[in-house]
Amino acid sequence: MTGKVWLVGGGPGDPDLITVKGLRLLEDADVIVVDRLGPRALLDTLPRVLSGQTPVIDVGKQPGHHPVRQAEINEILVEQALAGRKVVRLKGGDPYVLGRGGEEVAACVAAGIPVEVVPGVTSAVSVPAAAGIPLTHRGVARAFTVISGHDDVSGLLGGVPGGPEHTVVLLMAIAGLSHTAWALVAGGRSEDTPVAIVEDGYGPRQRTTIATLGTVAQVAAEAGVRNPAVVVVGDVVTLAPDWVGEVAGGTRLWATPQPA
Amino acid sequence: MTGKVWLVGGGPGDPDLITVKGLRLLEDADVIVVDRLGPRALLDTLPRVLSGQTPVIDVGKQPGHHPVRQAEINEILVEQALAGRKVVRLKGGDPYVLGRGGEEVAACVAAGIPVEVVPGVTSAVSVPAAAGIPLTHRGVARAFTVISGHDDVSGLLGGVPGGPEHTVVLLMAIAGLSHTAWALVAGGRSEDTPVAIVEDGYGPRQRTTIATLGTVAQVAAEAGVRNPAVVVVGDVVTLAPDWVGEVAGGTRLWATPQPA
Repeated sequence: MTGKVWLVGGGPGDPDLITVKGLRLLEDADVIVVDRLGPRALLDTLPRVLSGQTPVIDVGKQPGHHPVRQAEINEILVEQALAGRKVVRLKGGDPYVLGRGGEEVAACVAAGIPVEVVPGVTSAVSVPAAAGIPLTHRGVARAFTVISGHDDVSGLLGGVPGGPEHTVVLLMAIAGLSHTAWALVAGGRSEDTPVAIVEDGYGPRQRTTIATLGTVAQVAAEAGVRNPAVVVVGDVVTLAPDWVGEVAGGTRLWATPQPA
Repeated sequence: MTGKVWLVGGGPGDPDLITVKGLRLLEDADVIVVDRLGPRALLDTLPRVLSGQTPVIDVGKQPGHHPVRQAEINEILVEQALAGRKVVRLKGGDPYVLGRGGEEVAACVAAGIPVEVVPGVTSAVSVPAAAGIPLTHRGVARAFTVISGHDDVSGLLGGVPGGPEHTVVLLMAIAGLSHTAWALVAGGRSEDTPVAIVEDGYGPRQRTTIATLGTVAQVAAEAGVRNPAVVVVGDVVTLAPDWVGEVAGGTRLWATPQPA
């Protein structure tokens, strides 16, 4: 009998921020296929994983390294399900926010395998929240755009709303941050637009670094920021507890660990 | 002793799509302050609510009706916490996605009350997923913008990315749908851009109605769509199981209940 694949959004990393449904599916899985991101600590609390009944297949990808290619991940999901297993594909954040979940669903559908997407808490929203930054706020921002900084985004960025009432969230943006900040300014945003870099949201290394579009490349290099990180661009950054006043040109305003 | 306020994102409505942390806080609350949206069915499963130990204060807002104003909600949270209670403010979706969570946090901070935001599964991402629509998909869309259709959005929409690789998600968009669709076309989007309206995501009335920017106002009126609904604009709509082919001018393509 054919099994089934569940794509489970694991949330931003805090094991308690997975959904009740996602946790239940993990507890009941025959096999778990995990990402680099997502609540991996959770796996060590699952009785069937600890007893070895539920094997864990690690397909974690480091930026710049691709130990397991997407096509291979798709094959693993299909093979495991064809063997009759309940397969939980645990992904960081939400499967459908820059998570290539759609490709995994398509592979399952093409192979005739039942597949279900269980949404999760996306890092795009929740990691800024961990730093006290709401993506929308009355009188400050009433809309937001989520973009991957991993690709070359210059084509996209030209069309991103430039108004002050619009927040831009960049995922996987550290490597290309200098280019992305430049592209946002070229697209019409002021160099004084506040920027927050939130590293390791909900993790032991959580830290918020605040700068402006004009200074962020230098500030990020000086602070040694690294992935995983979420970058927030817009006036909502001024609502963060780390915000200490007006943006001064070229000045790094604040960088501090946050309570988790 | 002063209590504490937790703003808990309840997710899109399915009681199993709340986070593990959110559920634990609800189970342990001294008082729960609920919205119109969010997983209200969950309340009937909480022993302390069923026994009457934990009162539930309903501040639910219907569109166009405001039985409890935001300022009053803020006051309720502050008063309950000042009385020493553990206050859980249960909100639909995520507290920081067009949820006015930032105002409630600010009210608590101003009153010297400890407050914590517990992120949730946002409807902006999860309701499209319920209809089989990923917001991003390789080769189709690599970014998305979330906008409230509740306000007058014409100022914002002029700047919304017009490219085919950008998904636009509209929340609270039913009343202003005709105007919003027109504004998106005026902003440069093709009238043939696919649109999906997903009503009552994860609920018993879940239904997907598919149209184009040019036809959606008429199609929505004919189908009698109503809130709560999430509107998705962009080529990702073609990935939905409900998508049946090329967009033909003026033709309503599909409208069907989805499996929950």
